Amino acid sequence: MSPYKQLKSIFSRIYHLQNIHRILAWDEAVMMPEYAGKSRAKVMATLSRLEQQMLSRKKIQSFIDLVKNEKMDVWNTSNLAWMEKKHKIASAIPLKLIEKMTEASFLSQQAWRKLRPQNNWKDFLPVLEKTFSFVKQIAELKSQVLNLNPYDALIDEHASGFSQQSIDSLFVELKNALPPLIHQITVQQQKEKVQEPVGPFSVNKQKKLCKMIAKALDYKFSRGRLDESHHPFSSGDRSDVRITNRYVEDNFLSAIFGVCHETGHALYEQGLPKKWQFQPVGHVNSMAMHESQSLLIEMEFCRSKEFFDYLTPILQSELGHQEAMNADNLHKVITRVKPNLIRVDADEVTYPLHIILRYELEKGLMNGQIKISDLPARWNELMTSYLGISTKDNYKDGIMQDVHWPWGAFGYFPAYTLGRMIAAQLYSTFIKAHPDFSSETKKGNFESLHGWLQKNVYASASSLPTLRLIQNITNEPLSSKYFIDHIKKRYLTPK
Amino acid sequence: MSPYKQLKSIFSRIYHLQNIHRILAWDEAVMMPEYAGKSRAKVMATLSRLEQQMLSRKKIQSFIDLVKNEKMDVWNTSNLAWMEKKHKIASAIPLKLIEKMTEASFLSQQAWRKLRPQNNWKDFLPVLEKTFSFVKQIAELKSQVLNLNPYDALIDEHASGFSQQSIDSLFVELKNALPPLIHQITVQQQKEKVQEPVGPFSVNKQKKLCKMIAKALDYKFSRGRLDESHHPFSSGDRSDVRITNRYVEDNFLSAIFGVCHETGHALYEQGLPKKWQFQPVGHVNSMAMHESQSLLIEMEFCRSKEFFDYLTPILQSELGHQEAMNADNLHKVITRVKPNLIRVDADEVTYPLHIILRYELEKGLMNGQIKISDLPARWNELMTSYLGISTKDNYKDGIMQDVHWPWGAFGYFPAYTLGRMIAAQLYSTFIKAHPDFSSETKKGNFESLHGWLQKNVYASASSLPTLRLIQNITNEPLSSKYFIDHIKKRYLTPK
Repeated sequence: MSPYKQLKSIFSRIYHLQNIHRILAWDEAVMMPEYAGKSRAKVMATLSRLEQQMLSRKKIQSFIDLVKNEKMDVWNTSNLAWMEKKHKIASAIPLKLIEKMTEASFLSQQAWRKLRPQNNWKDFLPVLEKTFSFVKQIAELKSQVLNLNPYDALIDEHASGFSQQSIDSLFVELKNALPPLIHQITVQQQKEKVQEPVGPFSVNKQKKLCKMIAKALDYKFSRGRLDESHHPFSSGDRSDVRITNRYVEDNFLSAIFGVCHETGHALYEQGLPKKWQFQPVGHVNSMAMHESQSLLIEMEFCRSKEFFDYLTPILQSELGHQEAMNADNLHKVITRVKPNLIRVDADEVTYPLHIILRYELEKGLMNGQIKISDLPARWNELMTSYLGISTKDNYKDGIMQDVHWPWGAFGYFPAYTLGRMIAAQLYSTFIKAHPDFSSETKKGNFESLHGWLQKNVYASASSLPTLRLIQNITNEPLSSKYFIDHIKKRYLTPK
Repeated sequence: MSPYKQLKSIFSRIYHLQNIHRILAWDEAVMMPEYAGKSRAKVMATLSRLEQQMLSRKKIQSFIDLVKNEKMDVWNTSNLAWMEKKHKIASAIPLKLIEKMTEASFLSQQAWRKLRPQNNWKDFLPVLEKTFSFVKQIAELKSQVLNLNPYDALIDEHASGFSQQSIDSLFVELKNALPPLIHQITVQQQKEKVQEPVGPFSVNKQKKLCKMIAKALDYKFSRGRLDESHHPFSSGDRSDVRITNRYVEDNFLSAIFGVCHETGHALYEQGLPKKWQFQPVGHVNSMAMHESQSLLIEMEFCRSKEFFDYLTPILQSELGHQEAMNADNLHKVITRVKPNLIRVDADEVTYPLHIILRYELEKGLMNGQIKISDLPARWNELMTSYLGISTKDNYKDGIMQDVHWPWGAFGYFPAYTLGRMIAAQLYSTFIKAHPDFSSETKKGNFESLHGWLQKNVYASASSLPTLRLIQNITNEPLSSKYFIDHIKKRYLTPK
């Protein structure tokens, strides 16, 4: 076997281990009895150790050195570059540290599930401190290999190609633009009459509806499944990408947007090129790009008036008629702007401020200006300043609301808002090229959107850097402009 | 760390990988979309390779050599012996062969699921030949390490301590005793009036009932779950052992015995000692012992008249009243003896002949007297001779009925009938010590059985060889006597 073939074979095996990781993480959240938590944490730690061990094998670098000067096309060049980067990072982190970090991550997620409903920050603090101490050690080791500062090294994992510098300049535009927009919008919306649909809406009917919607959006159930979990998520690869959702009887809209969001993620995975399935270049481009795909479907497409023109008759026939069940009113309900303590329940206008808050706290944690024990007070300060609502003594709906930090995913949050801006810019490009899409949507014909995403985003996988890919598709660099324009258009144009 | 501690740490990691294997195999059968089959086969192959790689690390033998002459108690001595045996076997088999074998095993199981309903032996033959060729290579390599002939090496994996010689002498007694017994019983039963309960019985009600039964048998749902699959099975470990079952509307008894059988397996896993969970000595004793536990619960206990005295009022209240729903009649239904083509549907009297048939074919395959392509004809011959029914041109209900051979588990079948004899001998010992158990059972009090199995079987795990453990518990060597006596007592005593 040629050295490059050897490399491809090693990386296929690594892919299979990562695949196992995903299936077991899905199982942990959806199927596993709670009692098995501790034992599962050890299992995951062993698995991470093996992934790392395989990735850091010395012969990977020798093979890469042998191949590096060969002429290869873009895909193979990119594949080789990903291999080298992954190998270098893995080689810099001791196996023992990865093992400890993974076990801590699962145990602190389990502690979080238990302590959050109790509003118990006191007992959670040492658990989170432990996880964060491992994250910090890993960030420092990565930063040396990548020649980035430690927080940028974490950001790079989820939003490769971005840094504090580029994020700062994008986020500052939002931080300036959004507060006055929120004010204007809420004033305008106070004059509108809106009627909330009144439940209960049977969970079984909601499930059937969500299945119909996922199917209509072109999710292939032959290569996935839809289950229930505490928080909606999607996980898997092109052969088997699974969606989860949650249902409450008095609010079917929450389940609908849950499934739209996760379907957006899943379509991306299902659309990745079969040829490269087991190679690094065949993966999703970055988590920022992944979130752009879920948010494009959920926010740009499924929250549009046209989509609700299509959906409302289906809602009426599946959930029954009532006064509130008309497209105009429902669209008002789903575009209501109101500061909310909980990120996942936030409207799309205030949402970026939730992310900016977390981003600023992470910066402080990483440069040592904030300690984990300071977080509740600092959270309250920023929440009050950005959205005018307090989280004093309310850990549950403040610092303890997200799973990301317990899980150890510091540096992940920016990917949501970067993804949101990418979504706006991509969707705007698509709409320019498809002026009839709005009327097609009303008729339930969404094929052109799926086809366009397939061709431009899914099929590219990781062959190009994220920012370069966006530039190629939209013919300009990523900016906040399209997102801000979208907000103005959807929320301030007289209805 | 002392060398023995090092060994324990390595074997904990190996345990975690085996745990992953079990969860993924459960997922493959219960949750995975069919499309992912090929990709999952590669995943499982990679995982097996890693397990084997870890097990065959050279330093395991060096550590063992350092510890071997230390004084240790029975558990640790036994643990060390298991480590050495597992290491020696793993070291003898090339990684590539294990990887190929695992992939072939999953692909042939998937082919079997597709081709069996089509009765398509022609397309299945080359698939099975491929899997068998790997099995044979592995058996030969094992046989050199274990100093056993190749088929005995396969038997050793599932029924450690048994060999063709010991199995032959046990099976010949059954082969002689059963045919005249079957004749006597069927003649006697022809005179009995029996009334089959008439469905449909709602699947949801059956599910609820099965959950109640598992709970009554002391299965802890906090450390497991009950799902549906094509064939009932159980899989997992003491933290998380999952049962599956299948349901048909016109036959609730099939679901009931499905859940009784799998609960028997699961109770064994749940009862293993926590202290040794991650070590080889903490595993179930052997598959023969595992099957003894499921069959003791299903056949000895749950098929008894006393259990049906307890269960019938529950059946009446859950499934509704009808003439057939009385304990006397239902017990006649579940003890009806009639030669059947399908092993899993066979009554307990004819069942061993299904196993003996497979055992004889496996012997022929392993010593080269039979080829895979001869199997349908030889199957038909033996089936006609043992049970008087033909499988000519009926591959579906003949050679293609079981998943074991496609899965590569040659040498497994004897474990069922060895397990059945063990079950009879254990249960007889238990009953002698608990003369009131029959009247306790009628009142729904099964605690003494579960407590006895916990103390004598579950808690011993793999600390003693199977045959020695049976001798210790029952004060005599394993024999076919108790099973044959049980059959006579249950089926020939005038009712």
